[in-house]
Amino acid sequence: MSLVVVGSVAYDGVETPHGRVERMLGGAATYISLAASFFTRPRLVGIVGDDFAEEDRQLLASRGVDLEGLERVPGKTFFWAGKYSADMNDRETLTTELNVFADFNPKLPESYRKEPYLLLGNIQPALQRSVRAQMNCLRLAGGDTMNFWIKDYREELLATIAEWDFLLINDSEARLLSGEANLRKAAPRILAMGPHTLVIKRGEYGAILFREDSYFIVPGYLLEDVFDPTGAGDCFAGGFIGYLAEQGFDLKSGRIGRSDLSRAVIYGSVMGSFCCERFGVDRFRELTRAEIDARFEEFRKFTSF
Amino acid sequence: MSLVVVGSVAYDGVETPHGRVERMLGGAATYISLAASFFTRPRLVGIVGDDFAEEDRQLLASRGVDLEGLERVPGKTFFWAGKYSADMNDRETLTTELNVFADFNPKLPESYRKEPYLLLGNIQPALQRSVRAQMNCLRLAGGDTMNFWIKDYREELLATIAEWDFLLINDSEARLLSGEANLRKAAPRILAMGPHTLVIKRGEYGAILFREDSYFIVPGYLLEDVFDPTGAGDCFAGGFIGYLAEQGFDLKSGRIGRSDLSRAVIYGSVMGSFCCERFGVDRFRELTRAEIDARFEEFRKFTSF
Repeated sequence: MSLVVVGSVAYDGVETPHGRVERMLGGAATYISLAASFFTRPRLVGIVGDDFAEEDRQLLASRGVDLEGLERVPGKTFFWAGKYSADMNDRETLTTELNVFADFNPKLPESYRKEPYLLLGNIQPALQRSVRAQMNCLRLAGGDTMNFWIKDYREELLATIAEWDFLLINDSEARLLSGEANLRKAAPRILAMGPHTLVIKRGEYGAILFREDSYFIVPGYLLEDVFDPTGAGDCFAGGFIGYLAEQGFDLKSGRIGRSDLSRAVIYGSVMGSFCCERFGVDRFRELTRAEIDARFEEFRKFTSF
Repeated sequence: MSLVVVGSVAYDGVETPHGRVERMLGGAATYISLAASFFTRPRLVGIVGDDFAEEDRQLLASRGVDLEGLERVPGKTFFWAGKYSADMNDRETLTTELNVFADFNPKLPESYRKEPYLLLGNIQPALQRSVRAQMNCLRLAGGDTMNFWIKDYREELLATIAEWDFLLINDSEARLLSGEANLRKAAPRILAMGPHTLVIKRGEYGAILFREDSYFIVPGYLLEDVFDPTGAGDCFAGGFIGYLAEQGFDLKSGRIGRSDLSRAVIYGSVMGSFCCERFGVDRFRELTRAEIDARFEEFRKFTSF
């Protein structure tokens, strides 16, 4: 049973205190798919231009990512460039060239529509909604969004997430969406919007999982060097949904519980931490499932008492 | 077996988004002693002026704090006033009047000198060192410091903490002391300065315990309302050392291990979280050990997977 991933496939230019890369594979759907590929078979829905490199396609294919849904059209692939602050907690966007992504209107291949798992990367909420409507046998669906949609497309976004099982956003987005600065107060307001599960990502400080009757907090992994945080949040999403898909959780069966979701949050944290260890997607070229499971156990060790 | 606590006893003026108090009991030794009093019998060493109110002395006494070491001299008690930002993560000092605290030269009552546990609140490093030298039967000693001493009294501070078992500081202090922005790299440098145990406090994000061969991370407790964070770090220290004193840990016997210290970090976090629920020391007037132990179990629940 596979996972459908929808979102941007891009080229990124990134500058961090550890160095600078002019152009490398990026985009939310890329990071989500690569991270999820260690758990399940992601089927990617996205759009690229005719400049999309064969070696990048091959990297995704080599990780088992199904690319039937990756549309290739004349023009240039989405390009983003940014520069991180010395402490990596802030970044400045230097360039955003939507290119072919501006007209992205995701149409799912027929074979994707019966898949049980769906992860909607951060795109226009109406597009996220149209993708969900194309899926016929969903067991678990959710996704990400961002400040821009929360502020300027609020009604569309609310209609979209009302149909989701889970929402994965960061702390500032949770505050903006709920109108509440305190996260413990923000969470019930967001859960009242539809999703039964809310994951609030806190960057280097980890993540919080909220459900109606309980919550779970994981601290961030202490990396010795953060080379490039780009994509870490998407890799979190990929690890989270990837693990749930691997386990075959079916919401309707009622089998999915807090402890399953907590383990999914840990796998999300693990994948986000690996992402930061190299520039772009580089860490995923060599990463093994054994390393992933070892870091999962490391999380247990440094949080148990 | 008791704990000797050294540090400031003060009056504080505090303004937070939840309100304003012109003058209330405060000071590091006050918060440390009150928090520790739920676990052991703290014996306080400090100095106050003749304006120190009988009701404040009685509050400490009612919690079982031994006040033989609280010197009372002509003049005014140390006064500090500050104002917190809307998100409580920053505060501005409005007033610092050292008053009688300017001439604090701690002399321990004879009966204090054979106690096994010592917590040195944030005061001039040479004074911390002189206190430690007055103790004859120490099992476990450590304390806190601050940016000012790290920057301007570095040599004195290094000589002082070289004799400590543990150091409790916040993340910005750890960065300043080690000269290393990354906490995982900062920790071994600080441990090389003497203490076998380092606790880095991260405010709302919790704390990290570092030892030579392992580390433990606890996320912060999610409070619905942070009324007043003043003293939370000191209450963390009080809970940490209070639990270790209650358990009777003896470093020399080798019985103290990572899991004992991890539980101490949780009790520290519990006491810090209660501190923030009311202005000043108010939460400790009614708090019970049952509430403390219930919150300890809550930490286990929201961090276990």
